[in-house]
Amino acid sequence: MPKYPHVSASVTRRLPRYYRYLSALEKQGAERISSKEFANLINLTASQIRQDLNCFGGFGQQGYGYNVSALRGEIGRILALDNKIPAILLGAGNLGLAIANHMDFEQHGLTLIGIFDKSPGLTGKRIRDWHIRAIDELQNFCGEYKPKIAALCIPAEGAVEVADDLVKWGVTGFWNFSQCDLSLSEKDKAVVENVHLGDSLMTLRYYVNQLETD
Amino acid sequence: MPKYPHVSASVTRRLPRYYRYLSALEKQGAERISSKEFANLINLTASQIRQDLNCFGGFGQQGYGYNVSALRGEIGRILALDNKIPAILLGAGNLGLAIANHMDFEQHGLTLIGIFDKSPGLTGKRIRDWHIRAIDELQNFCGEYKPKIAALCIPAEGAVEVADDLVKWGVTGFWNFSQCDLSLSEKDKAVVENVHLGDSLMTLRYYVNQLETD
Repeated sequence: MPKYPHVSASVTRRLPRYYRYLSALEKQGAERISSKEFANLINLTASQIRQDLNCFGGFGQQGYGYNVSALRGEIGRILALDNKIPAILLGAGNLGLAIANHMDFEQHGLTLIGIFDKSPGLTGKRIRDWHIRAIDELQNFCGEYKPKIAALCIPAEGAVEVADDLVKWGVTGFWNFSQCDLSLSEKDKAVVENVHLGDSLMTLRYYVNQLETD
Repeated sequence: MPKYPHVSASVTRRLPRYYRYLSALEKQGAERISSKEFANLINLTASQIRQDLNCFGGFGQQGYGYNVSALRGEIGRILALDNKIPAILLGAGNLGLAIANHMDFEQHGLTLIGIFDKSPGLTGKRIRDWHIRAIDELQNFCGEYKPKIAALCIPAEGAVEVADDLVKWGVTGFWNFSQCDLSLSEKDKAVVENVHLGDSLMTLRYYVNQLETD
């Protein structure tokens, strides 16, 4: 799989947005889009998009713009979405269940293979295609099925410990909803994507206040 | 309420993080923290934090560091968290229910006063303190209770239309989970905080791939 060690995080973080817009365009039947139209749609400049894509090789054609399906395919490959890797979800509370039910993991390069919770009352309950497993099974499960990504929908207390264990058992990526910035003991062995819904809501509260005329 | 029209988005977006860490420190009983310790904890430099806080007046004291409760209070005031404004939630599917159940709105400067869904089968069902209302009631409800923020947990199709209506009815902030970048007709009348869980998951998939040795 291709590696891009020198591409900045800010460029990388725009790729999913490009992919999302290209997927919508493809769904609408668009075959081709001019760089200017694409820039307007996505609210960036054409030059910015060109610079971003050049980091990965560049995929436009002067005077033609972008081929929607081809560019979507290229970005999908860069993001490694075609190469689905096994994922688990920890914490079958409200948020965990919503993530399991709501997210299309396959579309994002993952296959959800297990859901775990520490509450005995939840063990065995069915969520879509999965039965909730006891957290005690986690180590054996990792040994057998080798999940690479873990979605953490558990409280902040204990999240670091379980993440450190999971790294030992082969997990290399964390999608962290646990309301803490996950700091791993072995930082070079895994990557963390923190999702702070509360931070996002506070930011909105701030901007709504800025908008108000007193 | 104080206004900070010249503070950049990148500075603003760090405030919730400061607030979150200070809240945790306060809970642990910490009264004071040196600027160096705080910087280490939050993974920024002491100078970066000082610069950020200076945008809002500056709250540290040379040789003392920060008073945890006082700084938490100041940042809470800047974020307007003490001034709770009414919010509604649209879409009582998996994600909407998880947000209603999981998020502490009060802690983030909001009071959730209503949940709406277009599915007649859901109308009247109880979620914590709220009964799900029919979407037909939305306009009258806005006229009477004047919600200021709307959490959109609805599909992308139709999200822009309902948001444009809500702006007419007085909503000035959108917390948007609807998998589209919400672009309002009257951009100056409301602010939007898009939450793209799929983008976050794709970013993680990319970084896990970058970590792999082929």
